Amino acid sequence: MGRIEDRLAELELELPEPPAAPPGVVLPFQWVRVSGGYGYVSGHGPLDGGEVLVRGKVGSDVSPERANEAARLTALSIFASLKRELGDLDRVTGWVKALGLVNTAPGFTGTPGVINGFSDLVIDVWGQAGRHARSAIGAAELPFEMSVEVEAIVEVS
Amino acid sequence: MGRIEDRLAELELELPEPPAAPPGVVLPFQWVRVSGGYGYVSGHGPLDGGEVLVRGKVGSDVSPERANEAARLTALSIFASLKRELGDLDRVTGWVKALGLVNTAPGFTGTPGVINGFSDLVIDVWGQAGRHARSAIGAAELPFEMSVEVEAIVEVS
Amino acid sequence: MGRIEDRLAELELELPEPPAAPPGVVLPFQWVRVSGGYGYVSGHGPLDGGEVLVRGKVGSDVSPERANEAARLTALSIFASLKRELGDLDRVTGWVKALGLVNTAPGFTGTPGVINGFSDLVIDVWGQAGRHARSAIGAAELPFEMSVEVEAIVEVS
Repeated sequence: MGRIEDRLAELELELPEPPAAPPGVVLPFQWVRVSGGYGYVSGHGPLDGGEVLVRGKVGSDVSPERANEAARLTALSIFASLKRELGDLDRVTGWVKALGLVNTAPGFTGTPGVINGFSDLVIDVWGQAGRHARSAIGAAELPFEMSVEVEAIVEVS
Repeated sequence: MGRIEDRLAELELELPEPPAAPPGVVLPFQWVRVSGGYGYVSGHGPLDGGEVLVRGKVGSDVSPERANEAARLTALSIFASLKRELGDLDRVTGWVKALGLVNTAPGFTGTPGVINGFSDLVIDVWGQAGRHARSAIGAAELPFEMSVEVEAIVEVS
Repeated sequence: MGRIEDRLAELELELPEPPAAPPGVVLPFQWVRVSGGYGYVSGHGPLDGGEVLVRGKVGSDVSPERANEAARLTALSIFASLKRELGDLDRVTGWVKALGLVNTAPGFTGTPGVINGFSDLVIDVWGQAGRHARSAIGAAELPFEMSVEVEAIVEVS
């Protein structure tokens, strides 16, 4: 096993199934697109394969704490995508940026605290190489009522 | 004519006028900015020059089917921009990523099906080189009430 | 002083304190992440250190004119971040792209005019090198009720 997989095991984390289109949905894009030493990661949510694990508006249907957990699950779905695409997570040598989207109920402005669930896990697993630029904004709606969505750019060796 | 223009002709597609600011609006940015072998494409909508072809909220004013068509028209406006900037669409050697924004009515979560109108056309025209990473999110509002907006990064030779 | 700092002085502009997390908030990300000759700038708002200078919904709480000023203040906060990260603003040799987010009240579609406050200042200071690709969209909510948020990519020497 590689260094990153060792770290995931140490944290007792298991990757979900890599993301897939929910039943009846066609998604004609790539979950990860590699170009010029970078991996461009499509918007992922709290998914196990095609199953959405956390749905609904943050601040009404979903608590900030549960939304933070959804962002953490989103990170795990992205890790699963990167492993499927690259074969070995050690090929992700750095995290560059993330755009975090929160499916906000009106008036919910605690988006940074939600997306911290993503950032904290990336940094916990990759250490200094996990440090990234980030935005955390409220979206009007997200696909399949997902509570959180994150897209990212990573350095790939 | 280049290979991509041949393909557009084969599909009986005509490019609209390249995008322009609507009357009375100043847009001090570049529609396409080239840097380091990549073209960074500004947010485009379903435009013919400065005319907005599809306006309004998707899920209430505008049907999902019409919004999918708006995303397709957005792709054509981007192609027109790229041709104006690069001279020859064959210089676009690959599509890297797209951020698709849908002007959603409350409760409309079918954003991926809308942005498929963009992705499907790019892949239809560029083939394998058209495959890209993507996000498809609901925006609270879009400029000029456009129903769809897409920004993108492409590989440029 | 460098060329860009001279230009800021000529325009009688002073940089605010570089951005910081507001009291009680943990932000585990980097305000600027440099990779491969580019600086990836996290979402910034109209900040002086950790103080939010312009809050509220544009089109109801905040006028379009005040929001344009907020976008200008956001540019200054980004300049302060870049100076902290790079030491010298002359190391920013070009602006590539910006994603501008406006905290819109329902029905406010004048987002380009708001984000022009950012773009106009960047171009005023950097000249031709300041010209960038851009999107200007309405967000459902922004962190800390900020009226404007901008993330960007710049060329770094």
